[in-house]
Amino acid sequence: MTWRPGSKTRTRILAVDGGQRRSRPDYLATEEPLEIRLVAGLSTATVAITMRTPGADFELAAGFLHAEGVVAGRDDIARMSYCTDPRVEAEQRYNIVNVGLTAAGLPDLRSLERHFLTSSACGVCGKASLDALELRGCPVMPPGPDLDPAVLPRLPNELREAQGLFDATGGLHAAGLFTAAGKLVALREDVGRHNAVDKLVGWAMLERQLPLHEHILLVSGRSSYEIMQKALAAGIPVVCAVSAPSSLAVDVARRFGMTLVGFLRSDRFNVYAGEQRLRP
Amino acid sequence: MTWRPGSKTRTRILAVDGGQRRSRPDYLATEEPLEIRLVAGLSTATVAITMRTPGADFELAAGFLHAEGVVAGRDDIARMSYCTDPRVEAEQRYNIVNVGLTAAGLPDLRSLERHFLTSSACGVCGKASLDALELRGCPVMPPGPDLDPAVLPRLPNELREAQGLFDATGGLHAAGLFTAAGKLVALREDVGRHNAVDKLVGWAMLERQLPLHEHILLVSGRSSYEIMQKALAAGIPVVCAVSAPSSLAVDVARRFGMTLVGFLRSDRFNVYAGEQRLRP
Repeated sequence: MTWRPGSKTRTRILAVDGGQRRSRPDYLATEEPLEIRLVAGLSTATVAITMRTPGADFELAAGFLHAEGVVAGRDDIARMSYCTDPRVEAEQRYNIVNVGLTAAGLPDLRSLERHFLTSSACGVCGKASLDALELRGCPVMPPGPDLDPAVLPRLPNELREAQGLFDATGGLHAAGLFTAAGKLVALREDVGRHNAVDKLVGWAMLERQLPLHEHILLVSGRSSYEIMQKALAAGIPVVCAVSAPSSLAVDVARRFGMTLVGFLRSDRFNVYAGEQRLRP
Repeated sequence: MTWRPGSKTRTRILAVDGGQRRSRPDYLATEEPLEIRLVAGLSTATVAITMRTPGADFELAAGFLHAEGVVAGRDDIARMSYCTDPRVEAEQRYNIVNVGLTAAGLPDLRSLERHFLTSSACGVCGKASLDALELRGCPVMPPGPDLDPAVLPRLPNELREAQGLFDATGGLHAAGLFTAAGKLVALREDVGRHNAVDKLVGWAMLERQLPLHEHILLVSGRSSYEIMQKALAAGIPVVCAVSAPSSLAVDVARRFGMTLVGFLRSDRFNVYAGEQRLRP
């Protein structure tokens, strides 16, 4: 029986509520890559690799191809299957969907509005994605900084107060860089959460402030693989989010010695990784 | 003086609060494509086109390239500039950033974890993105269905109650398909909002239910260009979101005759386009 990713992942977290700390089990939304491959006649092509929550994978592939104009309707699809090729690593088989087209040949993929290419080295499972980060030379974080547990719950309010644009439109994600003492250093906003983090890290790089080993990154939404990858590349050891992390976000944090905080509210928060940075 | 996109966009909306309807000015978070081009020696390559909120564009380019491992630090970048080539259309000049590298040649771009290619037909401004949808054959929506303004505010609660997974992890976006009478037809969840919509539309396509001309799409977060593009391709004339729309989401709705509702709460909502579907 091959391992197959589920839509939620069990883990243990540290729940901090005022002075109380309690280790308890919790569930995370699973995040794993999905590769969508087209098959027509003897030809095969990868059209996308997207981070997704496992479940309804055939529907995801069909809907993606429809939105991109590759298939017009049900009749353009002859069959769909997971890649159960035994030469593919077991962890990856349920992360690859083959979509067999009724057409004799592949469509002109240049007509896709955009398509995603990945280096073949990358692999398509969460573990392979982490390996790729390691191969790129992302080092494990140094041990600091020390975190005062009373400081963290104040950060979301600071971020919101500084978020001028948000007040006007209500439609922007924010990424804030804080010192370990809780002082806001920089804030960037964007319709895309990942762009807000890129703007923040880009600013620090242009100011020659990388790596940001003494800083905290706060994002207004959830934390995903992509956010953690950007924080890791910038050397930010502590990532806080107002909402939940994905399973792969937690995996990145644990592999690379980062502290990951979620559900950061005015009086409580959850620690998913790196709790050793919290002062007792 | 060339037109240059701002980070917010003024518009007029219809605010519906119980029985009251009021037209008023409002601000939207601007969403426009940004093309990031690398220049080294005599070579040029586009490495990404991303939807973003204008502002801090050089920082965004620098941070993106850093996260992808293309530049290691400030010294790898010789200069950055907007594309002010007069042969490029005025609307696009501030949506293209040229990043000049200090290296003599371009890096091996296959080493990028993923890079985004676009057809040259697409152009890089919001208007060109809409033109591309029209060229792909997306038709203007038919006039129906009629919407009962009392039905809409009930939809977010229905979605949440049906969201089993969300209860467990708190980390998933949801997309729900409703009839015009407010009956939930299907619900899909994912860490990515766009994936949840793909799963929903993929299900409908595989069930031969496209186009969904009599239905309402509800998304748990914000509405962006990408969400509207997927709804348009599926023929869904009404899109509701619990949070704010971007400027380009509103542009898509207005160009293609869609109804776009935002800030849908238990007692009120805003209509950004297609208010003619609301019963008086």
